[in-house]
Amino acid sequence: MNDEAFVVPGFKASAVSAGLKKDGGLDMALIYCEVEAVGAGVFTTNKVKAAPVILSKEHIRNGKVRAIVANSGNANACTGDQGMSDARDMALIVAQQMGVSEEEVLVCSTGVIGFPLDMSKVRDAIPKLANGLSEDRLMDAARAIMTTDTFPKLSYREAQIGDRPFRVAGIAKGAGMIMPNMATMLCFILTDIEIDAETLSKSLSGVVDRTFNRITVDGDTSTNDTVLIMASGLAGNGKLSESDEKLFVNALEEVASDLATMIVKDGEGATKLVRISVKGSPDQESASKAARTVANSLLVKTALYGNDPNWGRIMAALGRSEIPVRQDSVDIWIGNIQIVSKGLGLGEEAEHRAAEVMKQKRYELIIDLNQGQWEDYMWTCDISHDYVSINADYRT
Amino acid sequence: MNDEAFVVPGFKASAVSAGLKKDGGLDMALIYCEVEAVGAGVFTTNKVKAAPVILSKEHIRNGKVRAIVANSGNANACTGDQGMSDARDMALIVAQQMGVSEEEVLVCSTGVIGFPLDMSKVRDAIPKLANGLSEDRLMDAARAIMTTDTFPKLSYREAQIGDRPFRVAGIAKGAGMIMPNMATMLCFILTDIEIDAETLSKSLSGVVDRTFNRITVDGDTSTNDTVLIMASGLAGNGKLSESDEKLFVNALEEVASDLATMIVKDGEGATKLVRISVKGSPDQESASKAARTVANSLLVKTALYGNDPNWGRIMAALGRSEIPVRQDSVDIWIGNIQIVSKGLGLGEEAEHRAAEVMKQKRYELIIDLNQGQWEDYMWTCDISHDYVSINADYRT
Repeated sequence: MNDEAFVVPGFKASAVSAGLKKDGGLDMALIYCEVEAVGAGVFTTNKVKAAPVILSKEHIRNGKVRAIVANSGNANACTGDQGMSDARDMALIVAQQMGVSEEEVLVCSTGVIGFPLDMSKVRDAIPKLANGLSEDRLMDAARAIMTTDTFPKLSYREAQIGDRPFRVAGIAKGAGMIMPNMATMLCFILTDIEIDAETLSKSLSGVVDRTFNRITVDGDTSTNDTVLIMASGLAGNGKLSESDEKLFVNALEEVASDLATMIVKDGEGATKLVRISVKGSPDQESASKAARTVANSLLVKTALYGNDPNWGRIMAALGRSEIPVRQDSVDIWIGNIQIVSKGLGLGEEAEHRAAEVMKQKRYELIIDLNQGQWEDYMWTCDISHDYVSINADYRT
Repeated sequence: MNDEAFVVPGFKASAVSAGLKKDGGLDMALIYCEVEAVGAGVFTTNKVKAAPVILSKEHIRNGKVRAIVANSGNANACTGDQGMSDARDMALIVAQQMGVSEEEVLVCSTGVIGFPLDMSKVRDAIPKLANGLSEDRLMDAARAIMTTDTFPKLSYREAQIGDRPFRVAGIAKGAGMIMPNMATMLCFILTDIEIDAETLSKSLSGVVDRTFNRITVDGDTSTNDTVLIMASGLAGNGKLSESDEKLFVNALEEVASDLATMIVKDGEGATKLVRISVKGSPDQESASKAARTVANSLLVKTALYGNDPNWGRIMAALGRSEIPVRQDSVDIWIGNIQIVSKGLGLGEEAEHRAAEVMKQKRYELIIDLNQGQWEDYMWTCDISHDYVSINADYRT
């Protein structure tokens, strides 16, 4: 895939090195829509919210967006009144530069927490961002929002409504958190579909719930998590029928799912991407709780790292997950190898074969509670020595 | 302190190597009371419970106990009907050997999960345990319940009620969990105080809540956690007044607190013991939730390991702890060094001094929410490279 494949009609992007990142890499991005785009967003549930999160929530309320300005290297979180004022200034400067309204500019920041933004650098960078705007520079924007990510994350789909093609492109940054690079999850999705704000917002919420809300790296929730979508409407598809809406949601979900699994795969120090699937649950909430508890268990995650089909840890996590589990009805598979039947281990031969499956970079761990018809899943990664190094030793 | 200091009138203990541990170390213990003791217990809340937990809960209901038999090397967890039958047999064999009732024998197991106990080894060991009983062998029993612990854990206090001295001695094993050595928390406390079953049970529950329920190593709850207490009554103190009861609870709490902090200090791979104190909370539950969330945060724990006064991670953990935190009223101290005031960082000099405090093996991290009068705390440890090694690499 070359960068041209990622062009979405109506949108331009650019990136510069503003000097906010110590390594001198790209650290500011601008995404601009030449027409008034419909916008929607989903934001962190953390009660400690970064200033740009508070501002962008406020600006997106009317569903109209013209630009997203983002920086890495500094999260503008826990920065008090100064932080709010700086976030407002970022929106204002972009608005003046592009000749749009301040309320139509969304702001995102990621990186250091607790330090004020160097606004002189931000001010200098914005005209350069405006001058650099181009329809094929979305990958550069993906690079500019990276912190501890090891690769940029971009996904793209095309689909059709009637004879009208539409496009969905998304960029994201990783889920590990580190201070002074307190990385966070950011995702910007661009589409040319013609859609109203309410449908767009509903579609985004559903998709986020099935993708970004189904991933975990370390169980910590950041102060800056944000998923934004802008729709230019230039696909000119007219009013969406119910089946058209499904086509759009499918394309959106494919892009979000791609990005979500890329984030887990690039979890700090991660070597494995594992889907934890819980079936046979008596209700939806129990399936979700069970999957989340197993996916976040440190003991399960270190076992994934060690290629160890350690089902005792899975049983222990199920038992503390506050679901009505019956231990003597639990079946567990690693890939297609069953290792537990009715709560009892199937022995060393099965475990040996399961350990072979676990050497893969990506596989599924399936838990069947055999207590009902509901299911849910989470994507998780392992916890390695490198996770500890990245998060403990950054000063040394 | 030599072993003689730990004699509690009425009690004898012994330990043998039954061959359940691969390294040939002590792996079975017997604690026996020469008179009928009053007993109480607190057990894991995990819905997946090991067979000995189910049996001991049943046996302790009437408050009368004569013996505790415990083994390491095998948790007898997730072992189905066979496991229940084996736990019952352990109690029965001890009962027959000692000439007491089966219901007066409590059973505890820790170690491998999912494999049946080798009952021929257990059967052979019990007569040896009976023969080896001695009033000064409690430390040997402490050694026999170790799994990944690096040192045995024993605490002892003497106090007086009127002119009558009484004693409280306790042994415990560590909180890390590992498979095939899925370690669990076990604690046995012996006292010669004269006390009724109801008061003993109430005292134990309160003390456990303030000690063992205030520690965390990795956030995982085991299938085998058990705290048992036996009171021989040989101190002959007569009926306890309210103030006598307080004297007893104080002594009990000191012993339990000693053991609880020893467990955290000996957390797998841990290098630091840190008290997370939350003050100024609008209610008790919020104080507790805040302390637990910060104490269990992987990002906070890796920062503790790296001597990094990373208050952004603490703020992020508070923000997701589901308490009504106001970020602009939070103060944070590391030891006596304040690093955050009203939600804002106090700068590099303060952080530099805090990093010096963090080089200590033991210190306090204080969070003042400034939203009320309630407070709570948790003891936690750091997460080091060794934690990952212990839990990932055991097969290699």
